Amino acid sequence: MAGDVTGSPIGLHRVLAPAGVLPQQADVLDADPSPWPDEVVVAVERLNLDAASYRQLREAHGSGAAVRQAVLDIVAKRGKMQNPVTGSGGMLLGTVSAVGPDSPLGLKVGDRIATLVSLTLTPLRITDGLSRWDGLGEQVPCEGTAVLFGRSIAAVLPEDMPDELALSVLDVCGAPALTDRVVRSKGAKSVCVLGGGGKSGSLSLAAARAAGATRLVALVPTQGEADAVRGTGLADEVVVADARNPVAVAEAVGEPVEVTVVCVDVSGCEHGAILATAPGGTVIFFSMATSFSAAALGAEGVAADVEMLIGNGYVPGHAEFALDLARRTPGVLALFRGRERQTAGS
Amino acid sequence: MAGDVTGSPIGLHRVLAPAGVLPQQADVLDADPSPWPDEVVVAVERLNLDAASYRQLREAHGSGAAVRQAVLDIVAKRGKMQNPVTGSGGMLLGTVSAVGPDSPLGLKVGDRIATLVSLTLTPLRITDGLSRWDGLGEQVPCEGTAVLFGRSIAAVLPEDMPDELALSVLDVCGAPALTDRVVRSKGAKSVCVLGGGGKSGSLSLAAARAAGATRLVALVPTQGEADAVRGTGLADEVVVADARNPVAVAEAVGEPVEVTVVCVDVSGCEHGAILATAPGGTVIFFSMATSFSAAALGAEGVAADVEMLIGNGYVPGHAEFALDLARRTPGVLALFRGRERQTAGS
Repeated sequence: MAGDVTGSPIGLHRVLAPAGVLPQQADVLDADPSPWPDEVVVAVERLNLDAASYRQLREAHGSGAAVRQAVLDIVAKRGKMQNPVTGSGGMLLGTVSAVGPDSPLGLKVGDRIATLVSLTLTPLRITDGLSRWDGLGEQVPCEGTAVLFGRSIAAVLPEDMPDELALSVLDVCGAPALTDRVVRSKGAKSVCVLGGGGKSGSLSLAAARAAGATRLVALVPTQGEADAVRGTGLADEVVVADARNPVAVAEAVGEPVEVTVVCVDVSGCEHGAILATAPGGTVIFFSMATSFSAAALGAEGVAADVEMLIGNGYVPGHAEFALDLARRTPGVLALFRGRERQTAGS
Repeated sequence: MAGDVTGSPIGLHRVLAPAGVLPQQADVLDADPSPWPDEVVVAVERLNLDAASYRQLREAHGSGAAVRQAVLDIVAKRGKMQNPVTGSGGMLLGTVSAVGPDSPLGLKVGDRIATLVSLTLTPLRITDGLSRWDGLGEQVPCEGTAVLFGRSIAAVLPEDMPDELALSVLDVCGAPALTDRVVRSKGAKSVCVLGGGGKSGSLSLAAARAAGATRLVALVPTQGEADAVRGTGLADEVVVADARNPVAVAEAVGEPVEVTVVCVDVSGCEHGAILATAPGGTVIFFSMATSFSAAALGAEGVAADVEMLIGNGYVPGHAEFALDLARRTPGVLALFRGRERQTAGS
């Protein structure tokens, strides 16, 4: 299929090693910025690293300069920004610079877009050595090129919102869309969001409210974050607990909920989420730090009849849904801005 | 809670390290075979190691004697049989030797049972050095003691079935029960089982058939296994492909199915399962080798609107359901017996 002149809609022709895998599983991608007939090339302006990936890099490398070098090394070696430890990537923002004649994405040269497929499968070259990035935050000013395949997802950036805000919203837009779908389809009234003060967490709270939930519990790690969330009105109950401590989570949530949404970017939150969920309920895991076996065996271990969903980053219409939710929910915007200030000041 | 004289129904009082986690997350459990008031103690006869765990031990340690020593070392160190690499365990068979006065499990001394909670959270002592096991199969003759908590699951062994067969069925009984629930609730007609020739795979095929599916595809790794499955009538189509090769899986399955069940005990099957599933469909991951991030990012990467479920080992009534399915499905029994012969001869 790689030899086909039209290429593969899922980018198989870009896989250099090993043979026969999808771009996300690949060790190395061909990041050549010449479009195949169904591809789009993007002049990159900014990368937005996945939170779990950035946290790992920061913990492993320490200084901002070392984190920057680590990102450069990964992209140079792999042709994509996929953290080899966490397996996760992020997304990017840029301007369309070339559109192949057979591209089905509906983009044109000059469109400012955000990619909604992961950086883990996006061919990427960095050409400025990340000289404008201090390594101290997830948002990375960057010059370079990226490639979108035929079957890919990109959102044209809204004009009524600062880029960084739009990018932050789009980065997690799968979470509110899937929360909306699950809460509606189950007719769930009680929803708990672990990490309700974060980006995907606050959007998930807003989505659950809009979908009809009447008891919204936000679980956050610190009193300061609790105060911030209380001020937004996004949740009916704001509780403080370490999401990695199952007993503490269950006690903090109290009466178990019908749907629990896990938006905490640290490992070890599976059991607390399961214990917080009522029999017959659903847990949606959005954190890339989720352990499949901890979730599967944890539920079995406490005889918990709960449905457990792997948070799929793609739900049709998710970009517009999340942007609209952010626009009309002042509490979400307030938390996003607070988070940006915090990151800028760290 | 650990100081409470009635103990904790989920076994918190058995956690020695680290503090505050559930038994499955614990590094070390207290395997003292004296029951707390709500506990049951079992005289162990046989362990059934999780397939992914056994495969890892065999690959890492080579000879049967070395595998046996590795299992002894793990249990001596951790107070439970949890493979530190795969995180998985297995189950056990034995006879109830003591029942605490407050146990809600309904068991009595002398009952021959199988545990349906994972070995990863079951306090275990081995007292015979595994002298009757050659290290060459997943079923491990064993003398020792195990502990069941208040909120635990155990099945009394049926009298109309050999122990090893019942144990093999019970070991994977969550898979057919959840397959049944998903196929029924979605009204799905087309189902593909990756690894349809294995234990959980063949039971899942039988469950899907009983739940009303009319196009059953079994995907298996070898021609020999394909011949075995064809002989059983469990599937309408039997195809041969490497489940780790997404392109090969998609081509082998052809028209995508509504529900895909992953029962292959190797890593890297996430993308093939996603590509084999129609938009709006469901993937159920039962393999402990499943990577959460590969599944989440894989679906996003190919813009696949599929629901992805973490296979929960517990569904109410799953033990009776699986035993009954095995009893009345000659094809399942044939595959189980063939597998036992294969293991015995390897």
